[in-house]
Amino acid sequence: MHTVDLNCDLGESFGAYRMGRDEEIVPLVTSVNIACGFHAGDPGTMRRTVKLAIAHHTAIGAHPGLPDLSGFGRRNMDISPQEAYDIVVYQIGALDGFVRSEGGVMRHVKPHGALYNMAARDTALAEAIAEAVYRVNPGLILFGLSGSELIRAGKKASLATASEVFADRTYQADGSLTRRGELGALIEDRETAALQVLQMIKYGTVRSRQGTDVPIAAQTVCIHGDGGEALLFAKRIRARLQAEGVTLSSPAGH
Amino acid sequence: MHTVDLNCDLGESFGAYRMGRDEEIVPLVTSVNIACGFHAGDPGTMRRTVKLAIAHHTAIGAHPGLPDLSGFGRRNMDISPQEAYDIVVYQIGALDGFVRSEGGVMRHVKPHGALYNMAARDTALAEAIAEAVYRVNPGLILFGLSGSELIRAGKKASLATASEVFADRTYQADGSLTRRGELGALIEDRETAALQVLQMIKYGTVRSRQGTDVPIAAQTVCIHGDGGEALLFAKRIRARLQAEGVTLSSPAGH
Amino acid sequence: MHTVDLNCDLGESFGAYRMGRDEEIVPLVTSVNIACGFHAGDPGTMRRTVKLAIAHHTAIGAHPGLPDLSGFGRRNMDISPQEAYDIVVYQIGALDGFVRSEGGVMRHVKPHGALYNMAARDTALAEAIAEAVYRVNPGLILFGLSGSELIRAGKKASLATASEVFADRTYQADGSLTRRGELGALIEDRETAALQVLQMIKYGTVRSRQGTDVPIAAQTVCIHGDGGEALLFAKRIRARLQAEGVTLSSPAGH
Amino acid sequence: MHTVDLNCDLGESFGAYRMGRDEEIVPLVTSVNIACGFHAGDPGTMRRTVKLAIAHHTAIGAHPGLPDLSGFGRRNMDISPQEAYDIVVYQIGALDGFVRSEGGVMRHVKPHGALYNMAARDTALAEAIAEAVYRVNPGLILFGLSGSELIRAGKKASLATASEVFADRTYQADGSLTRRGELGALIEDRETAALQVLQMIKYGTVRSRQGTDVPIAAQTVCIHGDGGEALLFAKRIRARLQAEGVTLSSPAGH
Repeated sequence: MHTVDLNCDLGESFGAYRMGRDEEIVPLVTSVNIACGFHAGDPGTMRRTVKLAIAHHTAIGAHPGLPDLSGFGRRNMDISPQEAYDIVVYQIGALDGFVRSEGGVMRHVKPHGALYNMAARDTALAEAIAEAVYRVNPGLILFGLSGSELIRAGKKASLATASEVFADRTYQADGSLTRRGELGALIEDRETAALQVLQMIKYGTVRSRQGTDVPIAAQTVCIHGDGGEALLFAKRIRARLQAEGVTLSSPAGH
Repeated sequence: MHTVDLNCDLGESFGAYRMGRDEEIVPLVTSVNIACGFHAGDPGTMRRTVKLAIAHHTAIGAHPGLPDLSGFGRRNMDISPQEAYDIVVYQIGALDGFVRSEGGVMRHVKPHGALYNMAARDTALAEAIAEAVYRVNPGLILFGLSGSELIRAGKKASLATASEVFADRTYQADGSLTRRGELGALIEDRETAALQVLQMIKYGTVRSRQGTDVPIAAQTVCIHGDGGEALLFAKRIRARLQAEGVTLSSPAGH
Repeated sequence: MHTVDLNCDLGESFGAYRMGRDEEIVPLVTSVNIACGFHAGDPGTMRRTVKLAIAHHTAIGAHPGLPDLSGFGRRNMDISPQEAYDIVVYQIGALDGFVRSEGGVMRHVKPHGALYNMAARDTALAEAIAEAVYRVNPGLILFGLSGSELIRAGKKASLATASEVFADRTYQADGSLTRRGELGALIEDRETAALQVLQMIKYGTVRSRQGTDVPIAAQTVCIHGDGGEALLFAKRIRARLQAEGVTLSSPAGH
Repeated sequence: MHTVDLNCDLGESFGAYRMGRDEEIVPLVTSVNIACGFHAGDPGTMRRTVKLAIAHHTAIGAHPGLPDLSGFGRRNMDISPQEAYDIVVYQIGALDGFVRSEGGVMRHVKPHGALYNMAARDTALAEAIAEAVYRVNPGLILFGLSGSELIRAGKKASLATASEVFADRTYQADGSLTRRGELGALIEDRETAALQVLQMIKYGTVRSRQGTDVPIAAQTVCIHGDGGEALLFAKRIRARLQAEGVTLSSPAGH
């Protein structure tokens, strides 16, 4: 029996600005990562998004980002490990205010954008983030790129972790993602993408760009929710996984 | 036996900017209200301030403000009750991230500046803030201006409340503060200020500008911590209260 | 011969967030008011919007707002006249950086949202804004609500002014707008709206809710550009005015 | 006859936060670089600082920084050349609003902190910044680290440039600054620092850490204004240069 989580970023609107099709994607996933006000999201959006996730029995996670609203948290910043620790504690706490006030339970944390990418490679940053999560609540599950420093740091900090994989990105022979911008970095064909995920879940491997099968841990699949194509793909992969007998469930088992 | 709390705003530095003499004032008070990043404070400052308060066994409270860093949260803004609710939940949560990760316990919430003043008069805003506090944690104590709508709203929401009085401000015959800018609004003489507080605590009254003694609840006294004069006054009133047999203690009894 | 300006707010996107259908509305108006980064807009958006306006030979104006990105500048704030002066100088300057670097010329200034509304009623605020505009560039035209304090302040400061009217709002017998939220505040029928504008331009009067014809100056008409309905209405009113022989031109004559 | 400029960062206060001893340092320098609201500074501070500089006949420059108020613009961010261009145009324009409204003239631009450091090494970023300055006003002088990519980019863009040197930092045999944190990076002895500057101005060389004399262009010297020590050093170096017959003047000759 195979089990996998489908996670999606949610609550990325800000003030008068709308982003994402949250109501449509939330029924299709098992975990949501809610923006916490640094790269996206605002208090009102956070409250509404937490309510939406609770109504759909979807596992709720914090999605902390860099303090870079104008760059949507996508630009690397040379923050110190201490600064990373501090912004993660702050954002988990802020979201948890809404989770508690709505009667829910926070289950996981997934860093956003540049923070996610930097923490995948930088050991000190990864350990600072893992420590932040642990110290706020050692029962939280740390989501990170499969094979990354963040997953290693989470395990070292005694956190439960969820290794994230991508349906629409190709992998290198060393298990890393093909960089965006490189030829063949993206998988545009939905069936190919679904098959890649199925192989990951069933056999624990991914066919690399170089043609070799590389071992990969796949506990949660990143699902996009920002357009019509993304929604169609989410439905497709969800149906495909269920047809193959894969159980869809958040790592916390909810 | 009389008991009173001395509270002070803390953690108002921001990034490279220093404000307040936190290390010097914290031993002199029994409760601290820590800025949460909207009108002042940043994640690193919040962490350091929480640690400082824990080291001094001072009761920790959140000090949520309006989203107005350039105005230090002192400018009234026409926010809706829902917006007030949301920014209070967010900021309590954010500070609680640091309180929990440092092994402390949050005891109270005191709105800052314009939010405090607006909530003193505006019933709908006051009730939204009280509801926010209650829904995040019904065990929190709500600090507000003595006799204000905020105190009334806190009681209505079944929260414990602490009525705040000022040593250095004069009162009107209806129990309200003389407006800043009006003649005689401020008490500059330290002994007069100390005597006003003593009367409030011992007899539950304040001598108004009009010469009448007005009933007033005095459970916590606002202490400033932002300059040499303020520190001297804090020491003076502390010594004076202790000499008169008044017990200094946070409302939570810590 | 009658002449009127059609103005529209432009450049209200922010970072990853899109707002407005700028490319579609700009050919339909004669003046654009470009957000300057406080309530909306960011440096990249400002550059692209200035280029777009220049390409369409549309008169460019600054659209300064309150420092309230999360509230889109729509929430009143108790700023002092000096603070109003300062934020207006700053934002005009910032936009002018792009106008100059793209080889254009700034023609006017129209405050945004709550700043516009507060300056319509508050003489001190209105005079501070007029002084800010004048001191940066006395050749700029000040746009404000017809009959408002802002228009009076602009004239007092020796600025050229453009009195703004609304097609989709009803007016009171004293010439003021019916407050939003009141019954009959909005005109939903496009033909009625177009006729109201025609009467304003041709006869200098508006039929009030009370049935009287009230004198009103109408030099520029506010056009919305944020949806399909708005675009259709812009086309309609434009065609209607041209059919009646009204010349469409910015107040600067461009 | 030798001439050199002494420049200092000014206007780094923000809202209720004070930074720097602007009134004391401004009489000691010939150019000031005024923060523009991204890493420090706010509209009111900018106005007051421009007035202060005009009153002292000090040459005024813009000091644009990264959009990172909580990090004081000191943390590197992966911004694109286009983003660098945009934030520089915006900030020059914003400051120029105050310079024009106070009847002054802007003379130069010096990027701040991480933007300065990144532009010293990154050709594309340097060229984007130089282009931004040129397109807003080709008469502006670009200040940059002596020998840096920014100075090269300024010359390539046909801008006048001013090569900046440091009194309190040591240099390597290749003319670069010894990195902060390395042993011997800072010169603590005031006389040694003054002598280093004198050698730079008189002979166009600097004695490197390795003992060799390296050619260096020295048109402007960075002066700090943030403490008592800094002020004393500013007075010392000023007196020393004047005693040696060096003329103190901004590059614009004011």
